[in-house]
Amino acid sequence: MWRDRLLLAATFTAIFSADLYFILLPKLRRMGQGSRQFCSCGPSNISLPGQGGLATPHLSNWTYVPPLGALTTDSTGSKLGRLFAHPLYNIQTPALGPEEKLLLVEQLMEYYRKKMSRRVDHSAAAVSNISVTEHEVTFDPDASWLKFHLGINRYALYSRDDPAVPQLLEDMQGMAVVSADYTQDEKALKGVCDCTQVVKPSGHHLKLALKMHNFAKAMFKPMRQQRDEETPEDVFYFVDLQRHNAEIAAFHLDRVLDFRRVPPVTGRLVNVTGEILQVTHNEDLRAVFFTSPANNTCFFAKCLYVCKTEYAVCGNPNLLEGSLSAYLPGLSIAPRISIPNPWIRSYTFTGREEWEVNPFYCDTIKKLYPYNSGNRLLNIIDMSIFDFLTGNMDRHHYEIFTKFGDEGFILHLDNARGFGKHSHDEMSILAPLSQCCMIKSSTLVRLQLLARPEFRLSDVMRESLKEDPLRPILTEPHLLALDRRLQKVLRVVQRCIRRQGRDEVVTKDFAKSTGKPQTATEMKQTR
Amino acid sequence: MWRDRLLLAATFTAIFSADLYFILLPKLRRMGQGSRQFCSCGPSNISLPGQGGLATPHLSNWTYVPPLGALTTDSTGSKLGRLFAHPLYNIQTPALGPEEKLLLVEQLMEYYRKKMSRRVDHSAAAVSNISVTEHEVTFDPDASWLKFHLGINRYALYSRDDPAVPQLLEDMQGMAVVSADYTQDEKALKGVCDCTQVVKPSGHHLKLALKMHNFAKAMFKPMRQQRDEETPEDVFYFVDLQRHNAEIAAFHLDRVLDFRRVPPVTGRLVNVTGEILQVTHNEDLRAVFFTSPANNTCFFAKCLYVCKTEYAVCGNPNLLEGSLSAYLPGLSIAPRISIPNPWIRSYTFTGREEWEVNPFYCDTIKKLYPYNSGNRLLNIIDMSIFDFLTGNMDRHHYEIFTKFGDEGFILHLDNARGFGKHSHDEMSILAPLSQCCMIKSSTLVRLQLLARPEFRLSDVMRESLKEDPLRPILTEPHLLALDRRLQKVLRVVQRCIRRQGRDEVVTKDFAKSTGKPQTATEMKQTR
Repeated sequence: MWRDRLLLAATFTAIFSADLYFILLPKLRRMGQGSRQFCSCGPSNISLPGQGGLATPHLSNWTYVPPLGALTTDSTGSKLGRLFAHPLYNIQTPALGPEEKLLLVEQLMEYYRKKMSRRVDHSAAAVSNISVTEHEVTFDPDASWLKFHLGINRYALYSRDDPAVPQLLEDMQGMAVVSADYTQDEKALKGVCDCTQVVKPSGHHLKLALKMHNFAKAMFKPMRQQRDEETPEDVFYFVDLQRHNAEIAAFHLDRVLDFRRVPPVTGRLVNVTGEILQVTHNEDLRAVFFTSPANNTCFFAKCLYVCKTEYAVCGNPNLLEGSLSAYLPGLSIAPRISIPNPWIRSYTFTGREEWEVNPFYCDTIKKLYPYNSGNRLLNIIDMSIFDFLTGNMDRHHYEIFTKFGDEGFILHLDNARGFGKHSHDEMSILAPLSQCCMIKSSTLVRLQLLARPEFRLSDVMRESLKEDPLRPILTEPHLLALDRRLQKVLRVVQRCIRRQGRDEVVTKDFAKSTGKPQTATEMKQTR
Repeated sequence: MWRDRLLLAATFTAIFSADLYFILLPKLRRMGQGSRQFCSCGPSNISLPGQGGLATPHLSNWTYVPPLGALTTDSTGSKLGRLFAHPLYNIQTPALGPEEKLLLVEQLMEYYRKKMSRRVDHSAAAVSNISVTEHEVTFDPDASWLKFHLGINRYALYSRDDPAVPQLLEDMQGMAVVSADYTQDEKALKGVCDCTQVVKPSGHHLKLALKMHNFAKAMFKPMRQQRDEETPEDVFYFVDLQRHNAEIAAFHLDRVLDFRRVPPVTGRLVNVTGEILQVTHNEDLRAVFFTSPANNTCFFAKCLYVCKTEYAVCGNPNLLEGSLSAYLPGLSIAPRISIPNPWIRSYTFTGREEWEVNPFYCDTIKKLYPYNSGNRLLNIIDMSIFDFLTGNMDRHHYEIFTKFGDEGFILHLDNARGFGKHSHDEMSILAPLSQCCMIKSSTLVRLQLLARPEFRLSDVMRESLKEDPLRPILTEPHLLALDRRLQKVLRVVQRCIRRQGRDEVVTKDFAKSTGKPQTATEMKQTR
């Protein structure tokens, strides 16, 4: 009962503030400025007259907390500050029930207690003849990693104002690396590249798992390409290099879009000798290190072994740029499922997937579980917009947390193949949007906001990326491409609206998720 | 008897002309110009006062034919013309005995008659269901390829004035390609890259054998790198890309140095669809062709198969730059042996070969057959100078024609890893020269000539390379590096002379090769 009232109050407050911002304020400004329209969304000029009430994302179960002086807070000239102070970015989650949190404190503490005892045993046993720098095993229940993991809920990976996220970024930038190893993906390959199959050559990636104190763990992707290098036009998306700066930029973009579905990522200069070679127990990893003719320390992918030293990465002489992505909680305590993207591409030279040839593909998808109900298809469309903005064509699978069932949000993992070509907008990435002609109201309103001069996407991204130690993360052409692509997204939406009408296209997502979330098992049982 | 007199006459004529050029003319000019020395060989300022008689290369069995107005012929401002008109470049071979020619006309005609009948049979049998463009099998006994093969003798691959060479270059540039296939090297790999061994990854090369009419055959190496790209400093020489322009430039340099040990090479724009894909009978080769995302026709190395499309080469949309190197006569009629270079490098990350750590390495080599007699060691030193000028570190083996025995010249094959870095002079390539402190008199005199402003190496190379259809072949920094490196070679020689005296260092190679050449078998029997 109390909760329903709170919800009602929040709904009205949100409707009122959105109405104030989108209807009243523009009207007042229009009156002040004569005929010049305030809400200029570029060539497409989409606006939402009278849609004020629809502009609040995920409204059920969310409580609106009036921002501390929203709209006027930031007078420092920070567009990003003004964006994050905007009412649309200040809708707070209510106190979450245990089913809406990914992990419970007691559960996680028990998990680490067990891990701690195993590590101590293992550490003692590992004293062998190889000279690996050993670090004391520590555990701090207040560590930013734990707080990040505990903050994951059914709506997003982190909440907007969670102090654990900036702390986590800071820790990833500065904490000592105590151990390094291949990721599970690389280990699964066992050094073999099956070149007879037309598949993604994963071994090319060179990604590593770095552990820090207090069981902190991040995925390291080293720099492979200069910021100003563009992917050659003849290169297939599935063999494109992974870019550390794309991984960093994608985290910032996802946060700016308020999806919060990308785990925190930061840049860092890693000492490949001191922070990888000297702290790894993995003999295979040690074996791929070598000194280059220029006396730099280099290493190459296990899978490609010695033949491929030309694809090695090298420090200068030891320091190497890379991205560090925070690991999600282990699969044993927070299982995820990986699902093929319905708009998967053909990972061959000539093959075409059905969506590429059938303009009515979405009609089929809409009838299929789990896309026939709930938010899943809208989440896929969100993801396609995100990927279109970065230019990432390599979204073959997506992951969700099993706990939150089919209504759970989609994780935007592995974004390193974005930002390859600033001069090209790959419209096919938008296929889910253009073929289904659906978009969440909450997503659309934020995209429109970011198309306005006062919150221009490239400006807020430029500002956001300045926080990273490896700045500049994106070159100007890549930043400007974001604005151009945003206009293209809005134009696709406009075309859909023109054909099918606003009510068909813009989905009032705040009304979608109802009541207690079901788990995936429950969902399957109910079918 | 008649031959001896001829030899004597030639020796005297050569001594006289060299004396005239190196001693008398400079003296006259010095008198005219006051104290300014005419023979300025740069900082090292090496000259050969009183060495006139030593300046004639391979003098035994060579007849001096006075050049048509040498020294004054070329008034067009062509440095290259003046160089080739210089007496040092106009020492003619005498009429060659059958043992001094690689092939006899009758032998070669018989070989092609057999080949012709086999090809006609094969052609008829090859009519299968694949749509390969078939060409009529033709044979012309006057074809430039045959003439080139017939012109190979114990002194060089071709003689300076052989009209077959420019004709061969023209034919390689323009003749229709009637068939394409992997080279024997690539076929020997059978698609396998043994990545467990630290070896040269040959599969990376993408070289192909192209056949034209009249059994003409050339090795095609496609463009992999832009002219202005430098090999990154962290890349090992054994995994460096092969450069088509290096292959072309090496042929010109070898000709300018008057070694004539590199088979003719030209650049050509090849239509990868019409001149490779549509004319190959090799299913494996057809299978590596694909259309890139930019709609260009591309292909990749067999060995690396699909994983490696990122290392594919692409036409635009079909035309692709490449080098065409004339094939030598087949191994069945002109067998060659491949011998490890005594100054071979370690093809591992950390290994060091003896020559790298033992400053007295050459003393050991000098005692070993076949370096303990004849010209072999001097030929190795010639090759090291040639490789140092191009910057090629990848000379692991060298080849000689079996027929000419241990006195035969060394073939300078596979030069595509030269010209990788213009800003770096790899002094270790000169180890044979700097450790043995020996150089042929004929080589030294030509190097000194090319260090003079009026024959400056970079100028004659720039002029020579202008003949190639893919001009410019080398960027200016690479051309200028040749001059700088030439000075370094001369400085190494000067240092040797200072330490050991001229007589020890500068070998009168004209007196070395005596009488009738022995075959390899005879040489071995005589030991």
